[in-house]
Amino acid sequence: MQIRQLVVEKAKSAKDASRRLLSLGTDVKNRALLRMADYILEQREAIKEANQRDVEYAKDRGLSRALIDRLTLTDKRIEEMAGALREVASLPDPVGEIIRMWQRPNGMMVGRMRVPIGVIGIIYEARPNVTVEATSLCLKAGNAVLLRGGSEAINSNLAIVQVLRQAASESGVPEDAISFIDVTDRTAIMEMIKLEGLVDLVIPRGGEGLIRTVTENSKVPVLKHYKGVCHVFVDRDADLNMAKKICLNAKVQRPGTCNAMETLLVDEPVAERFLPEMIQVFRDHGVRIKGCERTRTIVGGLEEVKEEDYFQEYLDLVLNVRVVRDMEEAIEHISRYGSGHTDAIVTQNYQRAMQFLREVDSSAVMVNASTRLNDGGQFGLGAEIGISTDKVHARGPMGLEELTITKFIVLGNGQLRQ
Amino acid sequence: MQIRQLVVEKAKSAKDASRRLLSLGTDVKNRALLRMADYILEQREAIKEANQRDVEYAKDRGLSRALIDRLTLTDKRIEEMAGALREVASLPDPVGEIIRMWQRPNGMMVGRMRVPIGVIGIIYEARPNVTVEATSLCLKAGNAVLLRGGSEAINSNLAIVQVLRQAASESGVPEDAISFIDVTDRTAIMEMIKLEGLVDLVIPRGGEGLIRTVTENSKVPVLKHYKGVCHVFVDRDADLNMAKKICLNAKVQRPGTCNAMETLLVDEPVAERFLPEMIQVFRDHGVRIKGCERTRTIVGGLEEVKEEDYFQEYLDLVLNVRVVRDMEEAIEHISRYGSGHTDAIVTQNYQRAMQFLREVDSSAVMVNASTRLNDGGQFGLGAEIGISTDKVHARGPMGLEELTITKFIVLGNGQLRQ
Repeated sequence: MQIRQLVVEKAKSAKDASRRLLSLGTDVKNRALLRMADYILEQREAIKEANQRDVEYAKDRGLSRALIDRLTLTDKRIEEMAGALREVASLPDPVGEIIRMWQRPNGMMVGRMRVPIGVIGIIYEARPNVTVEATSLCLKAGNAVLLRGGSEAINSNLAIVQVLRQAASESGVPEDAISFIDVTDRTAIMEMIKLEGLVDLVIPRGGEGLIRTVTENSKVPVLKHYKGVCHVFVDRDADLNMAKKICLNAKVQRPGTCNAMETLLVDEPVAERFLPEMIQVFRDHGVRIKGCERTRTIVGGLEEVKEEDYFQEYLDLVLNVRVVRDMEEAIEHISRYGSGHTDAIVTQNYQRAMQFLREVDSSAVMVNASTRLNDGGQFGLGAEIGISTDKVHARGPMGLEELTITKFIVLGNGQLRQ
Repeated sequence: MQIRQLVVEKAKSAKDASRRLLSLGTDVKNRALLRMADYILEQREAIKEANQRDVEYAKDRGLSRALIDRLTLTDKRIEEMAGALREVASLPDPVGEIIRMWQRPNGMMVGRMRVPIGVIGIIYEARPNVTVEATSLCLKAGNAVLLRGGSEAINSNLAIVQVLRQAASESGVPEDAISFIDVTDRTAIMEMIKLEGLVDLVIPRGGEGLIRTVTENSKVPVLKHYKGVCHVFVDRDADLNMAKKICLNAKVQRPGTCNAMETLLVDEPVAERFLPEMIQVFRDHGVRIKGCERTRTIVGGLEEVKEEDYFQEYLDLVLNVRVVRDMEEAIEHISRYGSGHTDAIVTQNYQRAMQFLREVDSSAVMVNASTRLNDGGQFGLGAEIGISTDKVHARGPMGLEELTITKFIVLGNGQLRQ
């Protein structure tokens, strides 16, 4: 009951702040972001000290090395946080943009204006830099944030939030535009996602378990992606040399990311020419291959792929390889086993490229490019708060625009409804 | 358990159909819509007969006259349904539109393509014409519909759905793109809104109770509006003659609609000049006025407005009138008591018009126009499936575009992630 009350209070303050943000100009928001960058650097010793307490506690509890790595704030990471704040300050303000305006026969002008969403709840785990990144993007788009970071990073987050709030209030931005729920109990998340009317959108960032829990229990809209089971289809008319480079990049450039390839689909007519060399290259890069029956008749000594493997997000140097009859079978495979994240075709055939673009129902569909390029920065969105595989509001990398919504505006001179 | 199974089966068929819709051209969808219009007219006797059974049953059960009116299908209404189908066929197809495409420094082209959402669940009450309207808009936008109409209209809906499905399948559109849940038990709704992964979006249409139940229990995104508590603010620099006409239109042209005015806010400096005549006009039109203290000192014999009245959606010839100190107080009032639906300012002052547009956080904000004009048809969207007061995906009248989402497409020539 007390947790509920605390969360409601924080959400109410954030809501009030979000209303005041509606009247703030771009200059005020940018000034706040730049001051935040300065203060983060000025206060780096205090932030590192707080972080050290989190790291030691994590070590005492025997948490994994990967988690401790994500948790640790080095000088480099602190400088990156300041850099991210400055970068967001330099991006164009999405708020107030009038997307299109048209005149109706009665002379009334109707248009859509981009406006902030309101209060955005961010639920995340061990990485304290998310505190800075999420705040900077939400604030630039005119939203208040309601942050709920993981218990592992509580001291780091509190230190960072204090710095951000101070910089905000000294710049004319209400400090409650950055509200942090300092309750490490999981109940706080459950309370937060029930606050329809106070919280307008929730973005969970973290493991699939966290995201499923949030989605299943939320009464507030959620933007998310569960996982990335990404495919590259090498078509019969592919430039096989290009295909080899794209497949290698998609798999090994950074296998632990959601846009890395998990299954390679090869068109039957080119399978015998393409696979032996491709699989050799993968083996040279330490990739463990699981092949379908046809793949294993072409290349000997391969592990057998099982149907459940096709659903796997390995996040590792493991790859399924399947030979398909034609592109239709490839699209069917992607539709059945894929996660709607990122899928690519390699082909020089115009018609099949267009058909693949149209019929593959994923957040990013690519022709002749590596799946690893599905990213806000690579796409030129400036910065991203995450990648959505949802089917409403935003799909694919979410930048500043995706943290806004439009409203209709009407400029009339006395128009009435007849 | 049996209900759950039936709902899941229907949703799965709709999902399969939605995948097949991805490859259908505009011509096929339009042909299906036009054939539906023809068949609705050809089968009008069968439809009216089924409807007659619903109407008689409703009368036996002593349902309200208003409900029986909404339920009854006259020749005129059937012709309107056919007309709506033809109108939607004539609208441009939103699917496949590439909204913007830009080149990245590495030569890769990145853009957003408009695509269908997938399966859209429509939950509605007694009006059988919703079956036709919702189906036509969803189908044109490339979506499958999963319909769940009210028990009062079950025979009418089944007759209409049969006609629509036949027309679809004869035109090359999978008939399961129009799936109807013929379980009148309310459990069916509860099962339907749990089907994350099968149903992509739910649009409830009906009373506030239905909408709240759906929103609170859904695991699928919901687009909705609860109610319309709309305001007109008459600024000190208003053309008072224009203001009078706009206020009258906003209140009396059709008081039972969500975009009718419920509260009139008048700027103090013009209150004495404006209110006596305005209130006289309202009285002449049978409007019952509830006034604030200041209003009641200006015009005698008025009922007193209570704070809770400001939250009311009267949907009737009743109006709150409040005198405010200035525009800031008007905006504060709208923010506290309004529903974020439609709010208007009447003014000739440029700066305040712009500030009102920016700071009022509603789905439609108007300058010098009647709130009654917030409507898909009036705005030129062609047709609307409803008005959303949500803060994600769509806000305001929802036309064909709002029944789509974008995905990213990439046209490369071998780009890799460095």
